[in-house]
Amino acid sequence: MGTSPSANRGPIVILTDFGYRDHYAGVMKGVIASIAPQASVVDLTHGIAPQQVLAGALALREAVGFFPRRTIFLGVIDPGVGTDRKPIAVETKSGACLVGPDNGLLWLAAERAELKKIVELRTASYRLPQVSASFHGRDIFAPAAAWLWRGLPLDKLGPQLPAMMELRPAGVVEDQRKLRGEIIYIDAFGNLISNISRVEFERFASRCQQSRLLIKFKRCSSLALSRAYGEGAHGAPLAIFGSFDLLEIAVRDGNAAKHFNATLGASVLIHSVGPRTTSL
Amino acid sequence: MGTSPSANRGPIVILTDFGYRDHYAGVMKGVIASIAPQASVVDLTHGIAPQQVLAGALALREAVGFFPRRTIFLGVIDPGVGTDRKPIAVETKSGACLVGPDNGLLWLAAERAELKKIVELRTASYRLPQVSASFHGRDIFAPAAAWLWRGLPLDKLGPQLPAMMELRPAGVVEDQRKLRGEIIYIDAFGNLISNISRVEFERFASRCQQSRLLIKFKRCSSLALSRAYGEGAHGAPLAIFGSFDLLEIAVRDGNAAKHFNATLGASVLIHSVGPRTTSL
Amino acid sequence: MGTSPSANRGPIVILTDFGYRDHYAGVMKGVIASIAPQASVVDLTHGIAPQQVLAGALALREAVGFFPRRTIFLGVIDPGVGTDRKPIAVETKSGACLVGPDNGLLWLAAERAELKKIVELRTASYRLPQVSASFHGRDIFAPAAAWLWRGLPLDKLGPQLPAMMELRPAGVVEDQRKLRGEIIYIDAFGNLISNISRVEFERFASRCQQSRLLIKFKRCSSLALSRAYGEGAHGAPLAIFGSFDLLEIAVRDGNAAKHFNATLGASVLIHSVGPRTTSL
Repeated sequence: MGTSPSANRGPIVILTDFGYRDHYAGVMKGVIASIAPQASVVDLTHGIAPQQVLAGALALREAVGFFPRRTIFLGVIDPGVGTDRKPIAVETKSGACLVGPDNGLLWLAAERAELKKIVELRTASYRLPQVSASFHGRDIFAPAAAWLWRGLPLDKLGPQLPAMMELRPAGVVEDQRKLRGEIIYIDAFGNLISNISRVEFERFASRCQQSRLLIKFKRCSSLALSRAYGEGAHGAPLAIFGSFDLLEIAVRDGNAAKHFNATLGASVLIHSVGPRTTSL
Repeated sequence: MGTSPSANRGPIVILTDFGYRDHYAGVMKGVIASIAPQASVVDLTHGIAPQQVLAGALALREAVGFFPRRTIFLGVIDPGVGTDRKPIAVETKSGACLVGPDNGLLWLAAERAELKKIVELRTASYRLPQVSASFHGRDIFAPAAAWLWRGLPLDKLGPQLPAMMELRPAGVVEDQRKLRGEIIYIDAFGNLISNISRVEFERFASRCQQSRLLIKFKRCSSLALSRAYGEGAHGAPLAIFGSFDLLEIAVRDGNAAKHFNATLGASVLIHSVGPRTTSL
Repeated sequence: MGTSPSANRGPIVILTDFGYRDHYAGVMKGVIASIAPQASVVDLTHGIAPQQVLAGALALREAVGFFPRRTIFLGVIDPGVGTDRKPIAVETKSGACLVGPDNGLLWLAAERAELKKIVELRTASYRLPQVSASFHGRDIFAPAAAWLWRGLPLDKLGPQLPAMMELRPAGVVEDQRKLRGEIIYIDAFGNLISNISRVEFERFASRCQQSRLLIKFKRCSSLALSRAYGEGAHGAPLAIFGSFDLLEIAVRDGNAAKHFNATLGASVLIHSVGPRTTSL
């Protein structure tokens, strides 16, 4: 079938919103084991909330840099399965491939790993013989990932596409004295991850160097910026640049989402108080 | 110990109701790694609701055809552990083996893969040295699966049995103008999977070809039969033949179990309205 | 880097309190795959309740004996990440290594596998190039585990430590006629595992041989000691020595934690009634 075995592949890494109750993710691994029995398969997570494409996209972006270069990422959060959204595979400059629906799920990871080429998964011989309209993870995406792992060139999977769907978290809004962000991801500890990157925060801070910065979230008008989750008093809220390198709201030994009763989209405000900043 | 290493085995695939909180499933993998360090182990799921043997049986049946032929399935939903229910292993014509308690868990998969031979797991040398009365997954089933993976002939594990316990979902009830099924599985998306197979549905439809078919579920007297979960209006209920090839009730971008407040056993009715059918 | 590949390693076994929603555990596997691509990785569990160090320690202790001797255990329940608690690795007489924070998490397993040597993870070349203050699982612990798996001698990871933090469940309290224990672990079935070991129970029973023993828990003044979870009436509570070899309170086909509305720390009492015991 035009493939060459390739010993130095990374693993096939799976992310879905299938949860852990059913056999669905397991069945995808069965399909992979049938096509590429030597492939090592890693569960990134199957616990993304149902249909939360952006959460999955963020998780993929945060993971892509920590795996070997030639890893195959297989992402399936696919509320549009069986409709006209395209199944795609993406090759990146870093050597990683990404496989999944063209609904934005793969965009942030593709961008981080430097997108090189996109194809539509159309070649029938690299799908399961019977393709359902309800489970492309099993019938189209898992086979494609397994064939790529075996060394199949991307182009064999289908025709090249000029572009893919782009999906990004909201951007921060900045003016002279304020930086306004929002919560874009909530993790299982209840940590509230905002869209304010360390770079944006530091650039804002350097513009405001004569003044004091306050981090405001919900009823807290001045959260301490901590270096570690374990700083501050037991049960106290804090701000921290966590593993995403984004500003997070956390609670020491606690759960910030519950503490603040916070949901996605909640505002985080960085406020500069004191003498007017000089523009740089 | 009378085994021959076997390179072209499929993986050992584990399904349990142990959940994801404890070390129990992990410990089974430790036992397997101790006996068959080269075996690849796949989690089918550990999220079957506690003691729900039929749900586990359905998940195993849906998985068995998507794994390599010589896969070992290890199923542990075992409320009768330590009582007189027998520990068994099953060989199938397709080459797969199934290991677990003889409480019906393995039946649907054994039937689908074509049952060839059943043995009781009695040989002490293929169990752990100490067998508890509370965790046969660790002490009896995992060792048996690992030894089978190493190529041990089934008969070495114990004496042959003439039969195993059979467990099936309820059948559909059909008359001239009605096909009555019920919900037999609810997945993590809240999709409600009925016992009405596509074949039964189509046979009924062909008998009723002069008339119109209505799909009734709870307060909905006429659900549209969709081809994809993403058809219809956002939040609208629909019927679909999903990945089980059974009629499912779903909600677009939503959770049908919550939408309908539905549980296992809820009735699904296919009703033929219009001119009387001719009998075939 | 001073390592020698080692073919007969056991797996790298990961336990965390990260849950199953996020990519965090998956990212650790990416780091491992980047350093030790041939390593087999097993999820012991990621479902330990957040920051419950003792629960994780018990799970590690119960697992350590069931894995191959040269297994690497990687435990990350780490509320003090980024503070002055030390990152450590431990070598044991059984050949297993343990990697994680020095907060007590590794103690019970180290004790069971017979602690030999402890080092602090300080060598920069065996960490990721950038070490955050929020995710040492990724930046320090996963790399250390992967390097140990590759055969790196423990001493290369950092300076030796004279001791590590010890953490144990509360002990039982015993007098002539009573043995008082408490619930120290609750599993996903709702089984309530106490700190009363079979050895302690039997020693107490032999001291009280002239009398009858009653097992008291909450509103039940005399729980039957069963050999199997499936003994007794459907829905009835029972006591059993389960897979921990500790006295458990369970409910047949049910959930004891819900049945008794019980939490960690609840008392279990063994009472001797009848003729006074002779002291041994």
